[in-house]
Amino acid sequence: MVDRSIFLNISPLDHRYSLSEKPVFDALLPWLSEEASINACVKCEIALVNAHLQNKAIGAGFKPALQDRLSFNDIQINPAEIYAEEEKTKHNIRALVNVLKQKVPADIAPLVHLGATSVDILDTSLAYRMKGVTREVLLPLLRHLENELCDFAEREADTPQVGRTHGQHAVPITVGFAIAEYVSRLGKSIIEIEKLSNNLKGKLAGATGSYNATSMIVKDPEELERLYLAELGLEASEHSTQLVEPEYLLRLLLECNLAFGIIANLADDLRHLQRSEIGELREGFAAEQVGSSTMPQKRNPWNSEHVKSLWKAFMPRVITFYMDQISEHQRDLSNSASQRFVAEYITGFCFAINRMTGVIEGLGVDRERLMVNLRGSRKEEGGSRKGMQGGVLAEPAYILLAESGVSDAHEVIRKITLKAEKENLAFAEALATNTDALQRITTQMKKLGIIKEEKEALEWFHHPERYCGLAAKKATELARKYKN
Amino acid sequence: MVDRSIFLNISPLDHRYSLSEKPVFDALLPWLSEEASINACVKCEIALVNAHLQNKAIGAGFKPALQDRLSFNDIQINPAEIYAEEEKTKHNIRALVNVLKQKVPADIAPLVHLGATSVDILDTSLAYRMKGVTREVLLPLLRHLENELCDFAEREADTPQVGRTHGQHAVPITVGFAIAEYVSRLGKSIIEIEKLSNNLKGKLAGATGSYNATSMIVKDPEELERLYLAELGLEASEHSTQLVEPEYLLRLLLECNLAFGIIANLADDLRHLQRSEIGELREGFAAEQVGSSTMPQKRNPWNSEHVKSLWKAFMPRVITFYMDQISEHQRDLSNSASQRFVAEYITGFCFAINRMTGVIEGLGVDRERLMVNLRGSRKEEGGSRKGMQGGVLAEPAYILLAESGVSDAHEVIRKITLKAEKENLAFAEALATNTDALQRITTQMKKLGIIKEEKEALEWFHHPERYCGLAAKKATELARKYKN
Amino acid sequence: MVDRSIFLNISPLDHRYSLSEKPVFDALLPWLSEEASINACVKCEIALVNAHLQNKAIGAGFKPALQDRLSFNDIQINPAEIYAEEEKTKHNIRALVNVLKQKVPADIAPLVHLGATSVDILDTSLAYRMKGVTREVLLPLLRHLENELCDFAEREADTPQVGRTHGQHAVPITVGFAIAEYVSRLGKSIIEIEKLSNNLKGKLAGATGSYNATSMIVKDPEELERLYLAELGLEASEHSTQLVEPEYLLRLLLECNLAFGIIANLADDLRHLQRSEIGELREGFAAEQVGSSTMPQKRNPWNSEHVKSLWKAFMPRVITFYMDQISEHQRDLSNSASQRFVAEYITGFCFAINRMTGVIEGLGVDRERLMVNLRGSRKEEGGSRKGMQGGVLAEPAYILLAESGVSDAHEVIRKITLKAEKENLAFAEALATNTDALQRITTQMKKLGIIKEEKEALEWFHHPERYCGLAAKKATELARKYKN
Amino acid sequence: MVDRSIFLNISPLDHRYSLSEKPVFDALLPWLSEEASINACVKCEIALVNAHLQNKAIGAGFKPALQDRLSFNDIQINPAEIYAEEEKTKHNIRALVNVLKQKVPADIAPLVHLGATSVDILDTSLAYRMKGVTREVLLPLLRHLENELCDFAEREADTPQVGRTHGQHAVPITVGFAIAEYVSRLGKSIIEIEKLSNNLKGKLAGATGSYNATSMIVKDPEELERLYLAELGLEASEHSTQLVEPEYLLRLLLECNLAFGIIANLADDLRHLQRSEIGELREGFAAEQVGSSTMPQKRNPWNSEHVKSLWKAFMPRVITFYMDQISEHQRDLSNSASQRFVAEYITGFCFAINRMTGVIEGLGVDRERLMVNLRGSRKEEGGSRKGMQGGVLAEPAYILLAESGVSDAHEVIRKITLKAEKENLAFAEALATNTDALQRITTQMKKLGIIKEEKEALEWFHHPERYCGLAAKKATELARKYKN
Repeated sequence: MVDRSIFLNISPLDHRYSLSEKPVFDALLPWLSEEASINACVKCEIALVNAHLQNKAIGAGFKPALQDRLSFNDIQINPAEIYAEEEKTKHNIRALVNVLKQKVPADIAPLVHLGATSVDILDTSLAYRMKGVTREVLLPLLRHLENELCDFAEREADTPQVGRTHGQHAVPITVGFAIAEYVSRLGKSIIEIEKLSNNLKGKLAGATGSYNATSMIVKDPEELERLYLAELGLEASEHSTQLVEPEYLLRLLLECNLAFGIIANLADDLRHLQRSEIGELREGFAAEQVGSSTMPQKRNPWNSEHVKSLWKAFMPRVITFYMDQISEHQRDLSNSASQRFVAEYITGFCFAINRMTGVIEGLGVDRERLMVNLRGSRKEEGGSRKGMQGGVLAEPAYILLAESGVSDAHEVIRKITLKAEKENLAFAEALATNTDALQRITTQMKKLGIIKEEKEALEWFHHPERYCGLAAKKATELARKYKN
Repeated sequence: MVDRSIFLNISPLDHRYSLSEKPVFDALLPWLSEEASINACVKCEIALVNAHLQNKAIGAGFKPALQDRLSFNDIQINPAEIYAEEEKTKHNIRALVNVLKQKVPADIAPLVHLGATSVDILDTSLAYRMKGVTREVLLPLLRHLENELCDFAEREADTPQVGRTHGQHAVPITVGFAIAEYVSRLGKSIIEIEKLSNNLKGKLAGATGSYNATSMIVKDPEELERLYLAELGLEASEHSTQLVEPEYLLRLLLECNLAFGIIANLADDLRHLQRSEIGELREGFAAEQVGSSTMPQKRNPWNSEHVKSLWKAFMPRVITFYMDQISEHQRDLSNSASQRFVAEYITGFCFAINRMTGVIEGLGVDRERLMVNLRGSRKEEGGSRKGMQGGVLAEPAYILLAESGVSDAHEVIRKITLKAEKENLAFAEALATNTDALQRITTQMKKLGIIKEEKEALEWFHHPERYCGLAAKKATELARKYKN
Repeated sequence: MVDRSIFLNISPLDHRYSLSEKPVFDALLPWLSEEASINACVKCEIALVNAHLQNKAIGAGFKPALQDRLSFNDIQINPAEIYAEEEKTKHNIRALVNVLKQKVPADIAPLVHLGATSVDILDTSLAYRMKGVTREVLLPLLRHLENELCDFAEREADTPQVGRTHGQHAVPITVGFAIAEYVSRLGKSIIEIEKLSNNLKGKLAGATGSYNATSMIVKDPEELERLYLAELGLEASEHSTQLVEPEYLLRLLLECNLAFGIIANLADDLRHLQRSEIGELREGFAAEQVGSSTMPQKRNPWNSEHVKSLWKAFMPRVITFYMDQISEHQRDLSNSASQRFVAEYITGFCFAINRMTGVIEGLGVDRERLMVNLRGSRKEEGGSRKGMQGGVLAEPAYILLAESGVSDAHEVIRKITLKAEKENLAFAEALATNTDALQRITTQMKKLGIIKEEKEALEWFHHPERYCGLAAKKATELARKYKN
Repeated sequence: MVDRSIFLNISPLDHRYSLSEKPVFDALLPWLSEEASINACVKCEIALVNAHLQNKAIGAGFKPALQDRLSFNDIQINPAEIYAEEEKTKHNIRALVNVLKQKVPADIAPLVHLGATSVDILDTSLAYRMKGVTREVLLPLLRHLENELCDFAEREADTPQVGRTHGQHAVPITVGFAIAEYVSRLGKSIIEIEKLSNNLKGKLAGATGSYNATSMIVKDPEELERLYLAELGLEASEHSTQLVEPEYLLRLLLECNLAFGIIANLADDLRHLQRSEIGELREGFAAEQVGSSTMPQKRNPWNSEHVKSLWKAFMPRVITFYMDQISEHQRDLSNSASQRFVAEYITGFCFAINRMTGVIEGLGVDRERLMVNLRGSRKEEGGSRKGMQGGVLAEPAYILLAESGVSDAHEVIRKITLKAEKENLAFAEALATNTDALQRITTQMKKLGIIKEEKEALEWFHHPERYCGLAAKKATELARKYKN
């Protein structure tokens, strides 16, 4: 009854991707499956019993017949049992409590769930699972990706590439610098995720958060709450209604979504750098792999596309997270079903991270194409019209001319680029026709020590790769900073 | 390998709700599971072979050794086989084609997939499945709910209820009228969903939608496309890129989300009408059912809350649907993963409809409480302060006074209500203190035939249930119109 | 007091874009400004008075001193007057009513607003304005864009272009065919928008939609509602609460958002086709225009980017539209502020349409680059590695080979493309090395009439532009169909 | 030309709400208006000139003729001038630079914008404005609200109220405790917003973030960047492309949206507590104020509704914020228009905060109704059916019974509540019929010191206000902690 073909699931996470991402899926199951969810509730119920047993007033009455504490390993509970009981109670935690009471030594059965409302168990177990899955699965995956990015950025720190804005050639950078963007952005997000995962909270504050029930049991209900949560490695929400304050978890999810956006941005960059006409980078492609069922020549950047597509599937769920902040009075139940889908969100995010890691590990760099694109080419070569040969050096020409005291330097150089384009000249050739500008630029270059002799000036404008600022330095610095 | 405990799934749809909504889940599987998805692709591939076989030029060369057409029932394909092949090809449709070619008679193997690009199969099969699931599962569920609503609205067409705006007592309506709102809104949406599901389209237009491949096979590629799609009960997209125009499906999903919003609105209304202080309606509650694990007296409107919560989980996915409209050039693949989650969306929506149907079927009406709330009560009765006794009849008093030619009638009556509130009077009592206003109102009531004798006027203002306009008429009309 | 510098506005719509899109902004003001909003309410109030005057029972008592009907042109109301009154009432419609009562002939003042609740005016006026702005501004803008697209698609119906999927060269299409995608998608959406704008509804059903108040005034309140709405060119909502059923407007907005997505998709295509390495299309660029403040050579596709950016700003507002569906009981007010921003949405959408129209009008086509990209080029030319010369013809080679009865034709050709890539050959050259395959393909080509003589076969594989299926035909057909 | 009636604006922020929230609007203008935006750019350009002047190599050549530094106050720039120039350049920063060069002393004109790309100015000025508006306007508004909440929570710390879950009576709390929820949640968010606003970053890293241009000017471009940003009180982004890393601002906006959600939750609670049947709290209502244009008795919680509605309008914009994270390569421009709407977001949020502050300041507490609701009432009183008299004490009865060693205590008490409901008894009366349970409970109460004598036990079950756990203590503690 309980087993079913995985191909008879509805969610792609539970059929297709549970196979294609099997190791990640298997790592997530102990935290995010329904079995994991039930087990975590059992752990919480046991933690509560143990907290009671530590309490002098209560525990004393129950302890004689018992070992000091209950252990999760001693209790065998099958999810199916609880589901069967829920048929009757129509209440999942009451069902679990009924089953559990029959599994523990009879004399301590009255301690089970004593003083707790369902959500004392549910919200605490959610914090426990979210903290666990973040620290045990999500963060290791992220750190693996971050390390791959660091290695790549350092390795390609000096590889020249044309920088692009608006999809147009701008000024030169390096491949490592372009990847260091993601080292830096993702690195900071990993630190935040770690911090936020440590800040998830539980509660034992009762039906409305005001410790009514536990006030009938112990003198210091907040102390009982501390004992309970300490068993699970958690601390208490500063204020509770029936629910833990929703913002502890919300902030973690928002930061995950932010990290997801960074990875999606990287995916987009990689997709486009693999365009037929650009071809600077290339995803690994197996010998037997098929790109298209009808076009045998195709090599598609399908893994990068897949990551972007997962982002499109999961990013908008942030709206649900924000809507679930709102719970009327001491709580309505309208976050009950919606919050269960957080498990899907974490899963989708982990799959995306892992896929991207694979992309980076197998990413090929075509140095030849990088230089061709950077240099630009003339019309008859089928090259870049807008990026005429050397066009990416219009900026230093303008800067140098401005430094020489020419206030409309930008306009002077803009006209030279128009001439180059119109007459199909390399930028250096067009620059040479404006002797006054060239002279001023040359003088400035010598002054700054960029060149030693005047005649080197024009030659310099044929080598865009020499004009890349601090690209290599930043790439290396960031890669080393975030590598651990 | 292929079977797994359902408690080891990640998606709540595949574990918890696949049990609690088992009949609906089982009805959805033949359309939305991964097995269903693969089977639909096989059907499409077979439809393509059959289309080729009908073609004189192509078919003739292949037909002799074969019956007239392939049948899906003759081909036994196991999803696991295709997944194993995909390990090699890294391309799901190529994998399916490779497997299929070995299952069909050898002489027609070359016809398999001939002229098609993967998406000719995938998008067509998606249209086939979406049309099927809408017509076979979703629409029947919606019609069932609509009929329950119609029955309820007609049954309670005359049951007085206080109308509310801003959560404040406004003027009287009837319970049936309040439900007729949903009869009307949902009824129109069902008609739209039916229309849009009939308008889903397929394609056989090749890799870029321009019929390049099929132009190498047949004289009239659009005719071949028609034959192919006719096998599946579909028509062709007016224009295709690699993809069918996305708007056919998008409009259906947007309308589903709209219907979902209507049901969520109903869920909110029902939640609030079950508040302790209101108590006009009540979800069915089984004898053994438990409302809270710690508060034995609780009866929660948890089914209505569940429906609202599902809406919060699924409504925002419309952002993904809109983002998936955008595919660069003749297509990028960035809708590939995201579109798979449409199956989840339909499932979540069907679960919500079914849950709401159950709520309506078991919905109790407390006529006593309805009258108590409608009449309002005095302070010492612990009743409604703002809705002083009879306060909901301030409007007709103002209207009648205005009709009598008093231009500031609204202000006159507003002051009477302030007096009633301050002095803890019923509205009729306060009205009686303004003899001029009462006289004018009485005269007007006689003129309009609302009362026959002057002395009846004040009595009328003690019976708010008499002032409910066309509520009953509209409720009955709409219930009858949409009932089928 | 009422005038303010436009640079002291907060919304970009009211400062920057009100200048850069001045003609569109000015066309929208009579429908979407606050003045327009107030004027529309006044028109509705006047329509109500006129409806009363047509009524025998009511009108008769008031008509003698008056012309047959009130006219909007006779009533001069300044928004500032109403705002001053609202300071007192804290209720905008009551304020308007108070002011209006003093502007109409004294004897009909009691008819002003008689029987109406505020929302009878507000929702009706919203429908009136939305219908008006859609028909008078939005649809003309959309039709203008559609016509430009039709012209462009027809003009470039035969211009060869490489089709792309995944950003990779796929098979040949034509420029007109690529644009015809948008002709077809947008064309259908325009038809829907027109239909939905005609289906907006008003109401005069009172505080809770049950016609309580008007039942105290006339025998047939629905007839009074019809008279009222007919004055404004509208019909009644099938059911009302205090609100018109929200779905009439919602469907219009959803369809607008759908059309917005189509235009955003076009913007993305245009952005990428202007990349330095692709350069097939080009936005108009004025002689004095500056692309970058520091890079004088830059020509950015900034208008297409602007359209995409507007989509990012406005598309997500659909979440608000869906949330505004939900109004508790006969209405809560929580849609009051949010619904006012619909004016912003329509404005943003109109600005995007207009900007895109300008892009299409000035769009340049670089036929040379189109051919270079389509043909592909060898490595040493700095051309497309993945799209080796003629690689886009791998598909017909595979199709023809399959038709000849080779079941693994796809695999045969895939290996030929790998050889071409490895050895830096044109696809035709690599194909020539597999004499068996070439022979079969040649035979099939002759059989199909693609070539007449065997020797033409290889030559054909050097001319990808000959392999473009029905691209030109579809482009022309669709352009003609949607051009009006 | 530049002045326009505010009623001829499109955005509700710029017409209606600029009047109704005039003080807040006026406080925002110096940061969020278009004039503010231009002024901030001018300040950045001046900061850049001053940074150059501090540089020995560059500054020395220019300083003689000049005072040590430029001052914003010496430069008079009118937004209209820049807009006029932009007509020519089609580039807003180039336009500003052109105008500015003519306003500064001629000899330092070449230093204007030297080494900067437009976004060095734009993104830096955005950080400057966002930091400013957050610290000068947003945080003061939030702290004001927080203080009002603290005062209210402390004042009403002991006022009994029925706690609610699922809208059903649960167990007793206090009014102050219910408000302390928002003290605690909002308090933490304010701390986060402050921290994040201090972490906004600027840049002077050039067109692609790699310091190419400034490397042609100074030895240490990062030092120049520090000088530039220090002039504006900012630090540098750890890595830049053309853009500052988007996550600095994104995190601030996400946290704002989180705080918005908290306030929206409070708004919902307040709306519902003002329902006619509940009536525990009440927004201030002026003597002349009108609740409805047709129902003179109405008092609507319209300010709370307005706040909720603003949340519905602005919360979904978080999708835009997340989409704007993605910018291809070193940047595409597709965040240009969308990012401008951040000004609207901040404005909408500030308006909501301010409105909520007004609500809290004027919030009335009806102690009588609170007690009526808490105690529950019998059927014939028109009271709460589900919450039978004293039903909220079912929990302590169960807890006490369980502590006495009865394992199925929950079930025992559940049956007693069913009896109470069925026979229309107060809970205490029904409890008295189960003498065994009552005896055990009584004994336990004495043991715990809740009562001294046995006969007090039943009396205790008639006073739910005595059972409110730590509600008062938590309310007071949190109010004092967050009050400053």
